[in-house]
Amino acid sequence: MAEEQCIEREDRFDVDETIYKTFNIKNTINIWHDILNRTENQIADTILILNQRINLPFVVFKRLWETRSVHVCADGATNRLYEYLQEQQADNNNGNKDLREIYLPDFIVGDLDSITDDVKQYYFERGVVILEQHSQYAPDFTKCVKLILLNANSKEFNYLLQNNRQKENLGIDSDHGLLDMFDQLRQEHSKLPQRVDVLALGAIGGRFDQTINSITELYNARRDNPEMTLNFLTDTDIIMLVPKEGTSIEYNNDSTSNRIFRDHVLGNCGLLPIGEEVILTQTYGLKWDIINWPSSIRSGRVSSNNRFASRDKCYIQSDRDIVMNIEYYPDKLANYIEE
Amino acid sequence: MAEEQCIEREDRFDVDETIYKTFNIKNTINIWHDILNRTENQIADTILILNQRINLPFVVFKRLWETRSVHVCADGATNRLYEYLQEQQADNNNGNKDLREIYLPDFIVGDLDSITDDVKQYYFERGVVILEQHSQYAPDFTKCVKLILLNANSKEFNYLLQNNRQKENLGIDSDHGLLDMFDQLRQEHSKLPQRVDVLALGAIGGRFDQTINSITELYNARRDNPEMTLNFLTDTDIIMLVPKEGTSIEYNNDSTSNRIFRDHVLGNCGLLPIGEEVILTQTYGLKWDIINWPSSIRSGRVSSNNRFASRDKCYIQSDRDIVMNIEYYPDKLANYIEE
Repeated sequence: MAEEQCIEREDRFDVDETIYKTFNIKNTINIWHDILNRTENQIADTILILNQRINLPFVVFKRLWETRSVHVCADGATNRLYEYLQEQQADNNNGNKDLREIYLPDFIVGDLDSITDDVKQYYFERGVVILEQHSQYAPDFTKCVKLILLNANSKEFNYLLQNNRQKENLGIDSDHGLLDMFDQLRQEHSKLPQRVDVLALGAIGGRFDQTINSITELYNARRDNPEMTLNFLTDTDIIMLVPKEGTSIEYNNDSTSNRIFRDHVLGNCGLLPIGEEVILTQTYGLKWDIINWPSSIRSGRVSSNNRFASRDKCYIQSDRDIVMNIEYYPDKLANYIEE
Repeated sequence: MAEEQCIEREDRFDVDETIYKTFNIKNTINIWHDILNRTENQIADTILILNQRINLPFVVFKRLWETRSVHVCADGATNRLYEYLQEQQADNNNGNKDLREIYLPDFIVGDLDSITDDVKQYYFERGVVILEQHSQYAPDFTKCVKLILLNANSKEFNYLLQNNRQKENLGIDSDHGLLDMFDQLRQEHSKLPQRVDVLALGAIGGRFDQTINSITELYNARRDNPEMTLNFLTDTDIIMLVPKEGTSIEYNNDSTSNRIFRDHVLGNCGLLPIGEEVILTQTYGLKWDIINWPSSIRSGRVSSNNRFASRDKCYIQSDRDIVMNIEYYPDKLANYIEE
């Protein structure tokens, strides 16, 4: 194997396109168009809210919600949504419109031991589908993922959704009926017909085993449900599992303003081999680019405190999928969205 | 290898001592005596504050501080300490005593790009040792670890501390003088004479690459500085790297009250194979005990949402060190300390 290298770049530079064209790019991810401001609103684009306090600027929350068709709350996350909308109502002088009525989730899923009775009743009265699944062998995150894939792909589930709205739990067994229905769907389709894109809020932070469990869900999704794209948005970071073997990460937003999106909205980043050792074969566009660099948490060789130095895109090639976090500034993002 | 097993236990049970005695226990960690309420206050017991907002109940903060001899702030963490003590002053009617004057750190270390001028001046005037280290090849966390080990072990460093207080940076090169001095110490001692115990606040949470970098520091410490015990305390968890090959984790606090420490103060836990696969050879005392269980984030087999079911201790045996988080309730802990 070629020698390992670490190359310190200028703080800002333009990639050499003749070099960039030689890369075997198998995936392209655009931070702005694919995650923060999805423009091609697909039928199964989903926002999944997990049980952490929501701190997003309202303009950001609104954009994320409106550019996605399906809105799912995991159990106690429903309380967080309810509280957040109450706070925004008070803070933003939204007048007579009750924000809770406008931002109604489509589904509430989980073992329902955390959602309060009042909040559950509120959404029940407004026709939100509340699906109880008790099984202790799957965390609420997993139950939500399966619900999202069923909703996008299962004729049986959609039949129940149309015809069983009056029945408790849509007539689905409250212990593991949803999980069984998903297994059934998987038996019928080795490849699901409808792709889904999921952005999860509240996946990281809080109890540390839950944070790591969320990271596990990134790997689970890639392995078991390749029809799903799963990314996380926290108060500080965008977090994704960068696919191995050649990914171009773009962060231009085609803005006509003079301000540069990357400079104003994005901060540091890290390439984090959380699941296993990863060899970073090549990066191009980072402040500290690396070549043939074995990276692992046990060895202490982890590229943290790095950042995008190229003005609009960078290339990452590794022998295995690797977790990446990209710091962003929520208030600056709000300014961009408001423009 | 024997078959893998997962055994669901009663919610509370007493371990069978005849079984427990057969275990080859190489390490014993007591959550109460070793971490939350250290009773044997050693010369080099240290509290290390990293750059996250401090949210601990004051009685907990006070106990952690007073049961440790050395107090270190990493760069911007100094602002956090200063702000926290100001808040506590206002909240707790502490009268004429200025809490900032009472809880003065011994050292402030880092590249000092985050500490504000006012805060730096405040501590400078009160004789706190402020050590600037610019090197971009080590994060502030690493610089603090090396300072802590030097302070406990290096005659040269202690000589400068005694005789160079008037010189800027104790006369130590502000780029990488401290790091060089540590390398020198390591060359002189393959084993450092003075053990140190470090509890770090603010290591987890905030930017995700910094969280993972902190986990890397747990592995670094075990590998490079086995004379150091490093644990983290967050707003929700105690986090440690459980040594492989047989560890007994105890959580009895010898309380004479009727309340049971484990029941009131501790919540869920997780065994988190961050960075690589770990085989959990045997656990005994958890709600879901496991035997010969290969655990990895990539495979999705991670024991999260587990908890201590045994009343006072549990045993963990694995083929490699494994990160463990133990949820605790800060307000309940405050009640215990106040008793």
